[in-house]
Amino acid sequence: MVRPRIALAQIDTCVGDVEGNAAAVRSWARKAADAGADLVVFPEMTITGYPIEDLALRASFRRGAEAALQATAKALADEGLGELAVLVGTVGERETSHGARPTNQAVLIRHGVVEARYNKHHLPNYGVFDEFRIFASGEDPLVIDVAGARFGVVICEDIWQDGGPVTQVHDVDALVVLNGSPFEEGKGHVRTDLAMRRARQVRAPVVYVNLVGGQDDLVFDGGSFVAGTDGTLLATAPQFVEHLLVWEIGEPGPQVPPLDPDEEIYRAIVTGLAGYVRKNGFRSVTLGLSGGIDSALTAAIAADAIGGENVVGVSMPSQHSSGHSKDDAEDLAKRIGADYRVQAIKPMVDAFEQQMDIQGVTAENLQARVRGVILMAISNREGHLVIAPGNKSELATGYATIYDAGSIGGFAPLKDVDKSRVWALARWRNNHAVDRGEVPPIPESSITKPPSAELRPGQVDQDSLPPYDLLDEVLDAYVEHAEGRTELLARGFDPAVVDRVLQLVDRAEWKRRQYPLGPKVTALAFGRDRRLPVTSRWREP
Amino acid sequence: MVRPRIALAQIDTCVGDVEGNAAAVRSWARKAADAGADLVVFPEMTITGYPIEDLALRASFRRGAEAALQATAKALADEGLGELAVLVGTVGERETSHGARPTNQAVLIRHGVVEARYNKHHLPNYGVFDEFRIFASGEDPLVIDVAGARFGVVICEDIWQDGGPVTQVHDVDALVVLNGSPFEEGKGHVRTDLAMRRARQVRAPVVYVNLVGGQDDLVFDGGSFVAGTDGTLLATAPQFVEHLLVWEIGEPGPQVPPLDPDEEIYRAIVTGLAGYVRKNGFRSVTLGLSGGIDSALTAAIAADAIGGENVVGVSMPSQHSSGHSKDDAEDLAKRIGADYRVQAIKPMVDAFEQQMDIQGVTAENLQARVRGVILMAISNREGHLVIAPGNKSELATGYATIYDAGSIGGFAPLKDVDKSRVWALARWRNNHAVDRGEVPPIPESSITKPPSAELRPGQVDQDSLPPYDLLDEVLDAYVEHAEGRTELLARGFDPAVVDRVLQLVDRAEWKRRQYPLGPKVTALAFGRDRRLPVTSRWREP
Repeated sequence: MVRPRIALAQIDTCVGDVEGNAAAVRSWARKAADAGADLVVFPEMTITGYPIEDLALRASFRRGAEAALQATAKALADEGLGELAVLVGTVGERETSHGARPTNQAVLIRHGVVEARYNKHHLPNYGVFDEFRIFASGEDPLVIDVAGARFGVVICEDIWQDGGPVTQVHDVDALVVLNGSPFEEGKGHVRTDLAMRRARQVRAPVVYVNLVGGQDDLVFDGGSFVAGTDGTLLATAPQFVEHLLVWEIGEPGPQVPPLDPDEEIYRAIVTGLAGYVRKNGFRSVTLGLSGGIDSALTAAIAADAIGGENVVGVSMPSQHSSGHSKDDAEDLAKRIGADYRVQAIKPMVDAFEQQMDIQGVTAENLQARVRGVILMAISNREGHLVIAPGNKSELATGYATIYDAGSIGGFAPLKDVDKSRVWALARWRNNHAVDRGEVPPIPESSITKPPSAELRPGQVDQDSLPPYDLLDEVLDAYVEHAEGRTELLARGFDPAVVDRVLQLVDRAEWKRRQYPLGPKVTALAFGRDRRLPVTSRWREP
Repeated sequence: MVRPRIALAQIDTCVGDVEGNAAAVRSWARKAADAGADLVVFPEMTITGYPIEDLALRASFRRGAEAALQATAKALADEGLGELAVLVGTVGERETSHGARPTNQAVLIRHGVVEARYNKHHLPNYGVFDEFRIFASGEDPLVIDVAGARFGVVICEDIWQDGGPVTQVHDVDALVVLNGSPFEEGKGHVRTDLAMRRARQVRAPVVYVNLVGGQDDLVFDGGSFVAGTDGTLLATAPQFVEHLLVWEIGEPGPQVPPLDPDEEIYRAIVTGLAGYVRKNGFRSVTLGLSGGIDSALTAAIAADAIGGENVVGVSMPSQHSSGHSKDDAEDLAKRIGADYRVQAIKPMVDAFEQQMDIQGVTAENLQARVRGVILMAISNREGHLVIAPGNKSELATGYATIYDAGSIGGFAPLKDVDKSRVWALARWRNNHAVDRGEVPPIPESSITKPPSAELRPGQVDQDSLPPYDLLDEVLDAYVEHAEGRTELLARGFDPAVVDRVLQLVDRAEWKRRQYPLGPKVTALAFGRDRRLPVTSRWREP
């Protein structure tokens, strides 16, 4: 029996960078050949990056991707890799009754030419996906012959829906799936269970190759694997890193242990931020360090993503800032090796207050916005990306000053992380450091002190919000699970708390729209997969 | 022959306000009955408002809409309107293989009960529409009997696609279409031509009832009409106002002349802003008045939308502001009857500059952001909605300071209006005033002087950008028509200009995402119907 060797090339592409992505294909194809592979499989839409959104509708972009694909085929042969079967994803085209329309395509490159093309059948159009909007569906299945074995080829959503190409593929030695499957808490098992079901259905192992890296608000976690027909995993790749997983049909392959749930979320956020910074051409970030837990965790994440030396932390104390806040901010910066600065806001706040009649909440918000202006000036002057430490709980309830240091900038690493999890991730990160004999990055007092915006004397978050453990539970039910007031009351929540939270959430849509991008890590992230009218008078009955 | 009388109730609904929308149905049904109507037809999704986006996925919302619908049926009968046939839109439900899913539904109310329901077949999923994402399709046609006549009932997109319910409707006296068709430049003729085609197809007049009013970034222009089978319009309603158009089958109905193209766009923007202010519970707006054309036109639009007395214009001169800028700002405020204030920015700018080392572009942007902080403080203190005067040309090219007075706030009336059209609309508005013997709202010098941000001595926009007439032509081709560099060069544009514009547009995506909402008035507006990755390295070859 033939035993072809398959390489799963789990790589990090960049949307629109067709030259860079094509170069990565050549480089990883070389690694696969060096590892003795007969077939190397890349993630969904390798050449174009994923998701390309409405770039798909631009004919010049499709021509550019096709040119890069053809050049790649030729280059691989020129480099002596013509015998290697290379499966890559790209944007294709199909004639329809509405003219030429783009497709989500898998392509077999061999012997210097494009030997076969497959257009994705099932086009997801829920959550973060808009594929039905931009692509035309394929209709034909694809089976390729490599080294005497037969491989069915499908793309991502094709295995998530019953029917379609999976049922059209027979007598194969393996089913190969090119994926761009975004990370989401707890999704790993859903993927592997699904792949095992399809393996039984086609009576052959499923080779699942996933994208890795951050792209806008999506995080691709990699975690490629081979699922057997017997309900076991035959080989697994690590999450959150580029990796070449090599597996020989009929043999057991390498296995990596799954990550702890907190570590998985933490690394997803690090990956999202790292990708966003790098792919936008930045090398450094700046943020306000208040001494509080949100900015401390955000700074620790930034240090893990791009190196502490590329993080500029700015303490911007006001007259209401406590001594421990400044100390904690400085302590944190030292621990992570950040560039640390102090810029008092009082002179600027005084200038506004001398010119304008400003009191109460207006004065509180003014202080917060002066900090935003300082960070943007530092960004302008030195070229750092401003990142926003605001978390999901405050974003959901609108408990934030819009245009302050917590909400301005290009990326909000904690946008999809509620406050309860902010604390959990901070504790995990510190424990992880201790386990490795390193200095915990986050000062203990930033974790343990009561959260406060410190915009007036003695202020704490719980003056305005229910306790965070309770708040986050109501938010999870109301936002993530779309439960109504009736269902929430039936679960025993205090009606006053429920009404307060619902009122806050329903009124905060405008603020949420003004927040920078942030990574999606839960089932339902604010931003792309929660589409609500800004102006809605719906109130839960 | 029977001659039933039909009332087209062109009303302004609010998303989520099921009680308010239901009350409007009762009140307009009364008007229809008073006008002798046998049948009154309301716009698409009357009870829920339109578009409801992911509110459709919330079971509690669907229950609330159904309760309001049932209460409306009962109330109409209780009020003695049980004999009137009332067609309203709402959110329905349908069992599918994936469980209960929402539908976009038309409902016949008569004799105190819901007599019939129709679920929209064709669910648009392009441009601003996401209906395929949230709704299940209907399968059955609906024909109702009213006053001895037969009426086919369909919803909006059902007439835009060939096949489907229109082909299933036979031997009717009229085809009734409930619409939520957003305004777009030049769309009026497309709609009426389409309706005439469908009228010939079903051999009966088409009764086209459209929504009116602003909802988030969409503007619904009304302009309801009856299209005959002979290619003529039998009756027309005005655009941009609530209206009851009464038409008797077989008789000619009232007609209104079409609007001038500039007036149509102008009134679309006024409608969008008025709806956004009112539906969000505001009564007044504030904006910076620079003396330039963008803020002058925006203020004039605001005065037309909510009354000049509800507009707070703030002049925030810097050391670089020219004398004529301040004079023009004050003159404008007087002309439109706005509350006018002057707040010099120098003391605040000085405070920042004394504290931080700020020069060049950083200093320019700082001045601009201090203005943003001032407006937000006034908004905080007095409760006005901040509106942003930034236009589409600067938004497209990123020629704007993010978080300045041009880009902060809740709504950007000129977001989809390029600079060339800003001038055209200003001239139209002034001429319109002259035609009516009124004072032109916009000072002539605001229209004629060279545009400048006035952030450094002698600065004008054309230091950084191509002339606006050329820029806007390239933008139109590149953004609206998705032409590539090759096509642009083939049309004879200067390669240096093309490359400069493409580079600016491709890099400005992040700024565009941070802009407030603005009304959609062209085929392709920034925001909802242009979905591009923020991080993309695609450069036109």
